[in-house]
Amino acid sequence: MIYFDNAATTKDKPHEVIEAVSYALTHFGNANRGAHEDSLAASLDIFKTRKKLTELFGNASPSHIIFSFNATDALNTVLTGLIKEGSRVITTVTEHNSVLRPLYRLKRERGVALTFIGIDEGTRLDMASLENALQEGADYLVISHASNVSGNVVDIDRVAELCKHFCCLLIVDAAQSTGSIKINMQQSGIDILCFTGHKGLFGPQGTGGIALNGDFDIEPFRVGGSGVQSYLHEQPLELPTHLEAGTLNGHGIAGLSAALDFISRIGIDAIHEKEMELANHFLEGIRDIEGIKLYGDFASRHVGIVSLNLGCTDSAIVSDVLSQSYKIATRPGAHCAPLIHKALHTDSQGVVRFSFSYFNTVEEVDLGIRALKEISKHLS
Amino acid sequence: MIYFDNAATTKDKPHEVIEAVSYALTHFGNANRGAHEDSLAASLDIFKTRKKLTELFGNASPSHIIFSFNATDALNTVLTGLIKEGSRVITTVTEHNSVLRPLYRLKRERGVALTFIGIDEGTRLDMASLENALQEGADYLVISHASNVSGNVVDIDRVAELCKHFCCLLIVDAAQSTGSIKINMQQSGIDILCFTGHKGLFGPQGTGGIALNGDFDIEPFRVGGSGVQSYLHEQPLELPTHLEAGTLNGHGIAGLSAALDFISRIGIDAIHEKEMELANHFLEGIRDIEGIKLYGDFASRHVGIVSLNLGCTDSAIVSDVLSQSYKIATRPGAHCAPLIHKALHTDSQGVVRFSFSYFNTVEEVDLGIRALKEISKHLS
Repeated sequence: MIYFDNAATTKDKPHEVIEAVSYALTHFGNANRGAHEDSLAASLDIFKTRKKLTELFGNASPSHIIFSFNATDALNTVLTGLIKEGSRVITTVTEHNSVLRPLYRLKRERGVALTFIGIDEGTRLDMASLENALQEGADYLVISHASNVSGNVVDIDRVAELCKHFCCLLIVDAAQSTGSIKINMQQSGIDILCFTGHKGLFGPQGTGGIALNGDFDIEPFRVGGSGVQSYLHEQPLELPTHLEAGTLNGHGIAGLSAALDFISRIGIDAIHEKEMELANHFLEGIRDIEGIKLYGDFASRHVGIVSLNLGCTDSAIVSDVLSQSYKIATRPGAHCAPLIHKALHTDSQGVVRFSFSYFNTVEEVDLGIRALKEISKHLS
Repeated sequence: MIYFDNAATTKDKPHEVIEAVSYALTHFGNANRGAHEDSLAASLDIFKTRKKLTELFGNASPSHIIFSFNATDALNTVLTGLIKEGSRVITTVTEHNSVLRPLYRLKRERGVALTFIGIDEGTRLDMASLENALQEGADYLVISHASNVSGNVVDIDRVAELCKHFCCLLIVDAAQSTGSIKINMQQSGIDILCFTGHKGLFGPQGTGGIALNGDFDIEPFRVGGSGVQSYLHEQPLELPTHLEAGTLNGHGIAGLSAALDFISRIGIDAIHEKEMELANHFLEGIRDIEGIKLYGDFASRHVGIVSLNLGCTDSAIVSDVLSQSYKIATRPGAHCAPLIHKALHTDSQGVVRFSFSYFNTVEEVDLGIRALKEISKHLS
């Protein structure tokens, strides 16, 4: 199988990730549960991973890295724990359901007012509308750094600057950019960032988290065992314990830790460059296919995602043919991001998403190009 | 390190667990996200694991197995999603904070009435009080199958019978019994069961879930991407999707699946027998140590947990000496179960918990006995 579904999860992981998970599965006790060597081995590894993540995200303190089940869990924790009754929230049509559904719930249950920023004809986020909305007053902006459909990357420095100017707290969903695009929360002025471990970071599934650039009044989402202050009725107040009830995924975090070393060795810029080389090579190869429709602004900052359609053919059909006749894995449909499909008028057709990783090759991309050309001929 | 902290997490996993996770880390896409081979490989493995769990728990349908981050996540999902404003809930002093803290929150936020069933002088759950409380009327009973402190196992058939008689919904926290004690939800009449994957099931951390014996109106805890019905503002209604937002821990579940095969091959009864042989051998060896205090009813049904103290010595000191001088891992303190410590009058001293697994040996237990004898002499 040629795997071009890396925006769903990166299938190919650095070998050291597998080795680290295997090691953890034979050496780790339960982190922060006891003071014996095996528990401490897990605790120490998790602490080191927090430290690596503070370097990755440019936030100040390892205690302000919270581990979660996945990005969805991280976003539920932040949005549900932070956004109070009657708040004004700005978000965008590029958001994933991991942002939209928690916000819709907050609208229903807490009367939160939602404003959606659209995209322009070039599929870019409408920055003028965003500025207007911020000017009208908002408590929170929840925004994806990179769209999982168009692959467009938001100018997060400019967004953060606007948020600061209009006193709006900035929450970034970095599920599609982490590991591919450099982020520095302190320099940019991002308040809160949610990430996943199993996509661009090349870590195992079951990992993800929150990076906090400062102290925020986030009510715990999940409550339960904390390993310390067991006699309190509530979750202890100190971070990260406050937001980390229950046993962490120590085995998965060990893999994430090794993945972060890999990323640090290769360098995010080099990873991004490779992904974009593949994406651009692909684009060049397919651009002239008759009837091809491309979704995204490829002239601006982008991640390694190319979404397309062949004429009016249902994206699921194209993706199925790619899978069954060419052993090429892509993802059709709505990608859990309904509003951008409405904006792109692809809500019934969906789009075929090709998403490249550092581990893909030009040869694989060439096979993808050839396959699309053949399918297109067959359809016309 | 001799590892006697298996009630926190089993450190030694069957080798096939490590192999299965390694395989998944090189072969799995994202389950239920696309229809290509790599996504289907993950989906199929997860489905098979659901099926194995229905056999383990004796519930009817694989769709009624919900995967979660850990038992805490499972309990938060069930308790927060199910228990409505003003409900009457019975629970017990043997509960872990993964039950207590969600219930305290429901008391604060939804005015839920909580009744706590105590233990008798023999450390057993006070069944007469439970019956009285049920008779007075209750909507839910939330109860741990096996105490993580005393190791006592509740007669869950009798509890379920009482619940049925008094029309009370039964939610079982099986974190300490799963994999050691046979459970059949349909035969016993257990409505909902929450479990973890990384303790008695020998699976990786980051796994756990809910087994539903029927259909219950559980509001989703975490909301977000579902892979299907992306245009709905709410989580799709069908199970398991309804309660499984975001990317599942496919890599961890692959390990859990292999662990379930191991358990099925050895047999839960054989696993339990081995654990109890070790626990009883340990008990025989330490029973006569001067000043030893044992917590638990070892004449009745039990899991492989032996909690103790040496005179009035702080449990943390004993545990530290075991760890540092004898390389023996145990867990002191409160074990996130505050109320049973109040009942046992060990809330300041804590207890030293030895918890044995199928992978421990008699020789290791003998070293544990010798260590305790030496420490005791040194203290007296």
